[in-house]
Amino acid sequence: MAKKREFITRPGAVYQYNYPTRIRFGAGVRKELAPTLLARDLKKVLIVTDKGLAALPVFKEFVSQLKTSGLQISVFSGVQGNPVKSQVMDGVRAAKAHGTQALVAVGGGAAVDVGKVIALMMYHPGDLFDYEDGRPGAPPVDKEMPFIVGIPTTAGTGSEVGRSSVVSDDQTHRKVIIFDPRLLPQLVLADPELTLGLPPLMTAATGMDALTHLIESYLAKGFHPLADGIALAGMKMVADHLPNAVKFAKTHPGKATPEHLEARGMMLNAAMMGAISFQKGLGVTHSCAHALSTVCDMHHGTANGIMLDVCMEFNAKAVPERFKEMAHALRLPGGSPKAFLSWIPRFKKKLGIPANLSGSGVTREHLSKLLDVAEKDGCHPSNPVAVTRKDFEKLFLKALGKR
Amino acid sequence: MAKKREFITRPGAVYQYNYPTRIRFGAGVRKELAPTLLARDLKKVLIVTDKGLAALPVFKEFVSQLKTSGLQISVFSGVQGNPVKSQVMDGVRAAKAHGTQALVAVGGGAAVDVGKVIALMMYHPGDLFDYEDGRPGAPPVDKEMPFIVGIPTTAGTGSEVGRSSVVSDDQTHRKVIIFDPRLLPQLVLADPELTLGLPPLMTAATGMDALTHLIESYLAKGFHPLADGIALAGMKMVADHLPNAVKFAKTHPGKATPEHLEARGMMLNAAMMGAISFQKGLGVTHSCAHALSTVCDMHHGTANGIMLDVCMEFNAKAVPERFKEMAHALRLPGGSPKAFLSWIPRFKKKLGIPANLSGSGVTREHLSKLLDVAEKDGCHPSNPVAVTRKDFEKLFLKALGKR
Repeated sequence: MAKKREFITRPGAVYQYNYPTRIRFGAGVRKELAPTLLARDLKKVLIVTDKGLAALPVFKEFVSQLKTSGLQISVFSGVQGNPVKSQVMDGVRAAKAHGTQALVAVGGGAAVDVGKVIALMMYHPGDLFDYEDGRPGAPPVDKEMPFIVGIPTTAGTGSEVGRSSVVSDDQTHRKVIIFDPRLLPQLVLADPELTLGLPPLMTAATGMDALTHLIESYLAKGFHPLADGIALAGMKMVADHLPNAVKFAKTHPGKATPEHLEARGMMLNAAMMGAISFQKGLGVTHSCAHALSTVCDMHHGTANGIMLDVCMEFNAKAVPERFKEMAHALRLPGGSPKAFLSWIPRFKKKLGIPANLSGSGVTREHLSKLLDVAEKDGCHPSNPVAVTRKDFEKLFLKALGKR
Repeated sequence: MAKKREFITRPGAVYQYNYPTRIRFGAGVRKELAPTLLARDLKKVLIVTDKGLAALPVFKEFVSQLKTSGLQISVFSGVQGNPVKSQVMDGVRAAKAHGTQALVAVGGGAAVDVGKVIALMMYHPGDLFDYEDGRPGAPPVDKEMPFIVGIPTTAGTGSEVGRSSVVSDDQTHRKVIIFDPRLLPQLVLADPELTLGLPPLMTAATGMDALTHLIESYLAKGFHPLADGIALAGMKMVADHLPNAVKFAKTHPGKATPEHLEARGMMLNAAMMGAISFQKGLGVTHSCAHALSTVCDMHHGTANGIMLDVCMEFNAKAVPERFKEMAHALRLPGGSPKAFLSWIPRFKKKLGIPANLSGSGVTREHLSKLLDVAEKDGCHPSNPVAVTRKDFEKLFLKALGKR
């Protein structure tokens, strides 16, 4: 008789690791929130989430359980779309009014990003954008902050283990990066049960975001052997589990079958590994994706997924050894850069990610604005090979199908 | 013309990564110590090191440079052999007398281990062994501690990125583990120039310690994908660079050729990766090695190196998939558990590590004491398969050549 497969991700099995965030991973681990906060005597809790999530039964049940635990819960669900500053400032007012001691950000990258900077702005003076990363004369992050908990409901950005938030200006749509180690949640509860209901397309798009983090951080300039090891292991996880996550999102939406839980659990880990490894840096794909989000309001994960193959073709000539390592890690036959390059479009197709920009609403008319944003973006300077405006133009044209 | 190879490890090239320790790596990076401490206004500096190192020209030059920088330097060089409590307490007295604000531990595992607990005991009450890991009623680690800097001079234990110290009782030789996250140095300066003079045998033995950490943490029970990724990447580094480090230790002792620096630099990284990944746990090899050190005063790295192959043969049947992954990571032909098992003795031979215990002075007469210590040791409970006293007996007998 075949030995019964024992899944890592199964109800009641909880794992902990911290490099440097304390991550608690396991199906049902969200239930540790109340006892953990009560043990620290943190009773006034603000939940930050997005409008869509706040309306779902799984969220309502989560909040109602928390309310019976003795915690004083307030919910701020003013996050919507790509986060803008006014959402953050609304959240800060809510946090202050509640006397928030612990801020629990529940959601995808947007809600977690907003939660982190609401925590920052509770007691730090000045304007949010005063704290922009790299801004000369930025005020120090040295005031009190509430205890921050991140509870991801997508497996993509990994914002729950990241030290930055991206917030746009309400008027100009300029994306501003706020960066400080103190934005790191002190605790992450990574509970795959919360991601079981994510629809197939969103599962695929957020998963491609994670994959792009892993690949770009592995390729990024600099020497960071810890990040490299984590990135290669994370890529293998995405290759093994993202197709299953998308499949079960179709066949078993919201259902906690052992296989579905495992696929979701591994993707939650892979997403965190992506965000941890990109401490090293990102690259050209992200600069293209940021441009597509800013100019055409495209979903960040989808944009990364669409641009990944043309960007990797561009990079492969510069660092072929790195591409061989990735092909080896993924067990691709031949183990060559070519094997890796041909794997990406096959993988995208399996997930339902568009092969290129045709049909996305992006046209040649957007090109000059796209180039403006991509060129100024902060990600491509760590790309393994320099990217000029002309290069960006070629990449967008290729992705538009004008090869 | 062939492209000139660009080494990662070259004078002036400095890299930073922190998961969670801030690691600064690069040839010559030790020179950042004085400006870093001065910038934090930490002038009263205690250097903790071992007797042997204190006598070397490279150390004397390091200290004399520090003294001209404006820092008030005091040197405590009372570390010798496997650390004992009286050495720590001598160091605490020296630290207090100097009004130490920053404690800089320079050396191999022993000096760094001692430095970390000297820092602990400067302001924490009671006896050092009150703080033993897991001791019921252990006092909290909540008092002030000086700023701790770790500067490794061997590439083995990785104590500079570890949260524990091992200190023995002067009389009973019992090894006591002191564990607390606050024992982590806040800064590591990993400078391969300081390891260029390490003799071939010590290079090999400490390198085998690093390799054993990487293998045992990868195999350890539990689920920790970050540790696993780091461990596999670290193993590849050891396989690629330890033979060169040993070779150059013979042919270019103390000489900073580009190739020698590179081999030493990569081994420093691999050692830190081993210590970072063993947050997950260790295994049976370490329990055997701790017994050999306690009973026969054998060097820890040598003991790990000697015991590694018999212990891995014991483990391979339980977790063959993990052995396949290791074989794949090392590019061993066939990629099977057997390929990995046959690689270890070949690798040891290349490094001059004894194949077994014959000639080590360890005999059957030591067996019962060895079994007593190994059985009680804290490492084997995380081994992927349970280890009984009978198992330990078989392993030691095999290593004694009595198969």
